[in-house]
Amino acid sequence: MDDRNRQVVLKRRPVGMPAPEDFDIVDGPVPEPAEGEVLLRGVYLSLDPYMRGRISGVRSYAAPVELGQVIEGRVVGRVVRSRDPRFREGDFAFGGYGWQLYSAVAAGILTKLDPTEAPISTALGILGMPGLTAYVGLSDIGQPKAGETVVVSAASGAVGAVAGQLAKRAGARVVGIAGGADKCRYVEEELGFDAAIDHRTPDLGTALGAACPNGIDVYFENVGGAVQQAVFPLLNDFGRMVMCGMIAEYNDTAPRPGPNLGAVVRKRLKIQGFIVGDQRGRIREYRAMAAPLVREGRLKYREDVVEGLDNAPAAFIGLLQGRNFGKLLVKLDRDPTR
Amino acid sequence: MDDRNRQVVLKRRPVGMPAPEDFDIVDGPVPEPAEGEVLLRGVYLSLDPYMRGRISGVRSYAAPVELGQVIEGRVVGRVVRSRDPRFREGDFAFGGYGWQLYSAVAAGILTKLDPTEAPISTALGILGMPGLTAYVGLSDIGQPKAGETVVVSAASGAVGAVAGQLAKRAGARVVGIAGGADKCRYVEEELGFDAAIDHRTPDLGTALGAACPNGIDVYFENVGGAVQQAVFPLLNDFGRMVMCGMIAEYNDTAPRPGPNLGAVVRKRLKIQGFIVGDQRGRIREYRAMAAPLVREGRLKYREDVVEGLDNAPAAFIGLLQGRNFGKLLVKLDRDPTR
Repeated sequence: MDDRNRQVVLKRRPVGMPAPEDFDIVDGPVPEPAEGEVLLRGVYLSLDPYMRGRISGVRSYAAPVELGQVIEGRVVGRVVRSRDPRFREGDFAFGGYGWQLYSAVAAGILTKLDPTEAPISTALGILGMPGLTAYVGLSDIGQPKAGETVVVSAASGAVGAVAGQLAKRAGARVVGIAGGADKCRYVEEELGFDAAIDHRTPDLGTALGAACPNGIDVYFENVGGAVQQAVFPLLNDFGRMVMCGMIAEYNDTAPRPGPNLGAVVRKRLKIQGFIVGDQRGRIREYRAMAAPLVREGRLKYREDVVEGLDNAPAAFIGLLQGRNFGKLLVKLDRDPTR
Repeated sequence: MDDRNRQVVLKRRPVGMPAPEDFDIVDGPVPEPAEGEVLLRGVYLSLDPYMRGRISGVRSYAAPVELGQVIEGRVVGRVVRSRDPRFREGDFAFGGYGWQLYSAVAAGILTKLDPTEAPISTALGILGMPGLTAYVGLSDIGQPKAGETVVVSAASGAVGAVAGQLAKRAGARVVGIAGGADKCRYVEEELGFDAAIDHRTPDLGTALGAACPNGIDVYFENVGGAVQQAVFPLLNDFGRMVMCGMIAEYNDTAPRPGPNLGAVVRKRLKIQGFIVGDQRGRIREYRAMAAPLVREGRLKYREDVVEGLDNAPAAFIGLLQGRNFGKLLVKLDRDPTR
């Protein structure tokens, strides 16, 4: 055990695309767990697009990260000290907090992980909040029926990959949108989508129209921007837009105009947003469904693992630029289960 | 019985706001009802915003009216000849077709009206499709709860007046938006909304914010345009936009930009459109609920009756300009029940 904690804190509120200078790396004492708390040594830190909102200073569904505070993030780790009977040294758990090596967390909010059930990193991706996000958005809003066409943007990402695979399991024709030939190949060949389109294709609308000869019934929206503009006119009557995120616009300093809503009336569209945090309670339901599929290789995932906390800011900036390929994780320590 | 029929036909497809020259008034023979049909002499013709879409030539959820064809419209009338055992001369019925004095209609699509139950004109308004529109939009999409704030645009109109009154009955705080002091007074004093705001108020957003101190939970959207822009930022988390119509934009020659959809994610909004034509089957359910309230004066309505078919084009143009006050009807013949 190191005798110092290390943290990435917010130095400056980014305007537009974050820069490395917006972050500071500081060393400090390892926190002392209080009675009922557990000291967790992080093994994996999850980097997710929603964090961009938290460092913007705008009050949203969650409080923003303040200047000088450790950046918000979810961590899987190893218990190094426990002051609660439910955890022992050496246990693995999900629920560590922040871009840092150590966190002292109330035992009640930690979830013990069984490394023989699934790799512990999956608690941050396919079997964690990103997977649950896909599941909730698709079951509650998208509700694809067999034979319908589902389009998923950021299709090789942590959420999109699950959304598309679940839509395939529901019998839909699934078209993914991703950035670049490698990701598109992965989406088609590994994830088994019916087609994948590079969002940098010069005429995205035409390419998408060709890949969706029967129009689009469900759009699982992760990106916004030009992709949203290309998808919107292709929505069928009674189409559903699952509004999960709009990463392409997170660094905008002024909101772009959205689609004219006249089509929402004419086509009886439903455009609905959701936040997975409202649905945390359904993680058991989701894991019960998804964990066996993951073990059997019928629900696939890919992780993009960056080594070392110090590389978290650059990796996060890369995430906002679409440079990651799969669920982006920062490895904080050797994974003793692999 | 006249020996000639008279019709308003589409002469020219309007570009932007329709002009009187887009319509033609022609005389022709009274149609001959075939076996199983009924010849209806129109008493009231309903003028509704949706007709603007039908004469635009754009294929939408219904086929457009072709040049030279009679303009689409719903008519309440008196049976002057019946070739079906279900109707007798002198019966009143809903289901006549078009901007014309006479129509021959299959008996199966006509609904017999009992003038002692409610004035026959109400089958085109408060107890007809406009009332059903409000009911369906509010029950299926808006779903206001007691204590929530509901905003209704075109609040003195055929749909808005019912939507607001039903929201009041559900226990919501209801704010109407209407054009001009007279309509606003009517919305507050006659219809019993909690407040009414003139959409021509210089700073509509501020006025609306003041009238909705707890934000807006449900927006029943009838108009689009500047009103939509003022309402959208005030929507609360989990707010619902009932997309019924956008009359302020029906004459636009190019679509205006809509709201940025980032807020749909952050606030978990639902924006959903509907067309009452999909829900015709629920007219009985609606009338069973609404007719007693109308008789008891607990569901109020106002009709704006224009005399004579020849005035239909001018009245329709006025409707698109917000010049009507209440459900707009064209009186085609003396109403023998009044």
